[in-house]
Amino acid sequence: MAAALRRFKPLFDRILVERFTPELKTKGGLLIPEKAQAKVLDATVVAVGSGLRKEDGTFTAMTVGVGDRVLLPEYGGTKVEIEDKEFHLFREGDILAKWEQDS
Amino acid sequence: MAAALRRFKPLFDRILVERFTPELKTKGGLLIPEKAQAKVLDATVVAVGSGLRKEDGTFTAMTVGVGDRVLLPEYGGTKVEIEDKEFHLFREGDILAKWEQDS
Amino acid sequence: MAAALRRFKPLFDRILVERFTPELKTKGGLLIPEKAQAKVLDATVVAVGSGLRKEDGTFTAMTVGVGDRVLLPEYGGTKVEIEDKEFHLFREGDILAKWEQDS
Amino acid sequence: MAAALRRFKPLFDRILVERFTPELKTKGGLLIPEKAQAKVLDATVVAVGSGLRKEDGTFTAMTVGVGDRVLLPEYGGTKVEIEDKEFHLFREGDILAKWEQDS
Amino acid sequence: MAAALRRFKPLFDRILVERFTPELKTKGGLLIPEKAQAKVLDATVVAVGSGLRKEDGTFTAMTVGVGDRVLLPEYGGTKVEIEDKEFHLFREGDILAKWEQDS
Amino acid sequence: MAAALRRFKPLFDRILVERFTPELKTKGGLLIPEKAQAKVLDATVVAVGSGLRKEDGTFTAMTVGVGDRVLLPEYGGTKVEIEDKEFHLFREGDILAKWEQDS
Amino acid sequence: MAAALRRFKPLFDRILVERFTPELKTKGGLLIPEKAQAKVLDATVVAVGSGLRKEDGTFTAMTVGVGDRVLLPEYGGTKVEIEDKEFHLFREGDILAKWEQDS
Repeated sequence: MAAALRRFKPLFDRILVERFTPELKTKGGLLIPEKAQAKVLDATVVAVGSGLRKEDGTFTAMTVGVGDRVLLPEYGGTKVEIEDKEFHLFREGDILAKWEQDS
Repeated sequence: MAAALRRFKPLFDRILVERFTPELKTKGGLLIPEKAQAKVLDATVVAVGSGLRKEDGTFTAMTVGVGDRVLLPEYGGTKVEIEDKEFHLFREGDILAKWEQDS
Repeated sequence: MAAALRRFKPLFDRILVERFTPELKTKGGLLIPEKAQAKVLDATVVAVGSGLRKEDGTFTAMTVGVGDRVLLPEYGGTKVEIEDKEFHLFREGDILAKWEQDS
Repeated sequence: MAAALRRFKPLFDRILVERFTPELKTKGGLLIPEKAQAKVLDATVVAVGSGLRKEDGTFTAMTVGVGDRVLLPEYGGTKVEIEDKEFHLFREGDILAKWEQDS
Repeated sequence: MAAALRRFKPLFDRILVERFTPELKTKGGLLIPEKAQAKVLDATVVAVGSGLRKEDGTFTAMTVGVGDRVLLPEYGGTKVEIEDKEFHLFREGDILAKWEQDS
Repeated sequence: MAAALRRFKPLFDRILVERFTPELKTKGGLLIPEKAQAKVLDATVVAVGSGLRKEDGTFTAMTVGVGDRVLLPEYGGTKVEIEDKEFHLFREGDILAKWEQDS
Repeated sequence: MAAALRRFKPLFDRILVERFTPELKTKGGLLIPEKAQAKVLDATVVAVGSGLRKEDGTFTAMTVGVGDRVLLPEYGGTKVEIEDKEFHLFREGDILAKWEQDS
């Protein structure tokens, strides 16, 4: 992970994710034109905030962690560029689901 | 259930459901054209989240569980595709009712 | 009551009601055309939810019960079809009033 | 009071009122055409609900009671017909004022 | 104060005020046409409610009392006629300021 | 300070301020036409309310006091005229910042 | 830091930041026309408020401090001019992220 990314700390319940790269070819090997590429809603969590601030000054525990694969909503989120690479910030409550690790 | 589905964990009070397949024929056996097929509001619960986060950090117990047959609202929900199969995510508070098990 | 209905459980503070059938004739015996029939706002409660979830995880007691005759608001509610019969779901807070039993 | 009315129980903080009849003649005895009759905002309380539900499950005490003369807001309220007589339902918080009894 | 007014009790945090009469002449003695008369925002408190209902069923103490001179917002409030005299009802939180008594 | 002003008490968290007079000349001494004069956002606090009412009936302490120089938001506030002089009322939460005293 | 800035105290959870200066040349040394210059979302914190007021009258601790490099949202914030230099005020909750110090 880039040094800059390691020092990036989302505030409160924000989560920085990196979207999966879209499929560029069909299973048969044909190139998919950009407009026909499905919007990728799968992403990997890259950095997480400290959580929402509670009345007593502590923060809620986050339900997703760095490395988790998550399902993003189709709309929303904020594009962020860190060292020429594209990431997105979402609030924890807007993330739809995560994929639990194999155990 | 597919392996991918078993690892799918909705966040907070979200519920993943699979809609019943629409009636394709009339009781008399005639094919129903797609536009005339009634919107199916019955669904089976496939995965449930941990519940809403309470002030003390714990989560509310969910009122529906995996396998429950539920009644969906006509609008709302988020379409999700998992391994080429269509599911929908709803928030617990938007689900209208469930059918209790025979006892 | 139909078997299906007995297993129907509205979620949270939802209430399933069956509207009274509209008057089809005047007191004098004349047929009332459908457009002139008054909207029926009286209904019988058929099933009730567990109540709103409170902060401690328990539910509020419902103020109407199965069999109660209630007064519905003119708008709102969700039409539900159970075994080809029409019912409506309302939230408890939207029901205007109930008729107390003779004692 | 009609028997039906005695059994009518508004839900929560709703209040059933009967509006004062509008003045149909001027003080000088002339008939006032209906369009010129002032909207009557004075009403008598006919039935009151149990109050708003509090977090602990009890209800707030109502600040107006049956028989009170109250001042209604110009807009709002829900018309209700009980045995061919017209009444109106208002929420307690929308009632502007009451006239205290002579003591 | 008229008898009717003495029995008028605004509900909750409502306050009944009587606006100051607008200046009808310039300091030099010229009549001011009605359209040029400034909107009078000063008023005298005539009756006050019991305050907002708190969670424990008691009411908040009101910060203005009968006889106080207050500053009204330019818009809002509800016109009320009591025995052919015009008053206005405002919620306590909408009143801008009061003039403290000379001490 | 005028006597009237001393008795003026804003309600709740309202703050009465007097805006700084706009610059009428450039640094070089030229007159600035009125339309070109920048909107003055600096003001001096002239009177403060008792604070917001808390659940227990007491009031929050105000974070600005009489005499403080504050920075106003560009929009909002209510113009008030006291003895032919112009003031503005703002809610404490809308004031952007204050200038701390030299120590 | 200018003397005026040292005495500038944002109210509540407001944060005064100074935006990074935009890139005026490409890496190859060519001048970038103003319209093509990317909006700079990186900024340095110059002054912070006391935090949000809690129910008990104390304030929440701020999660960013003077000197922190932060990531601003693309829209929002209030432009403030202090001694002819441009700054921006943001609420703590609108700041997207901060860069943690090297350790």
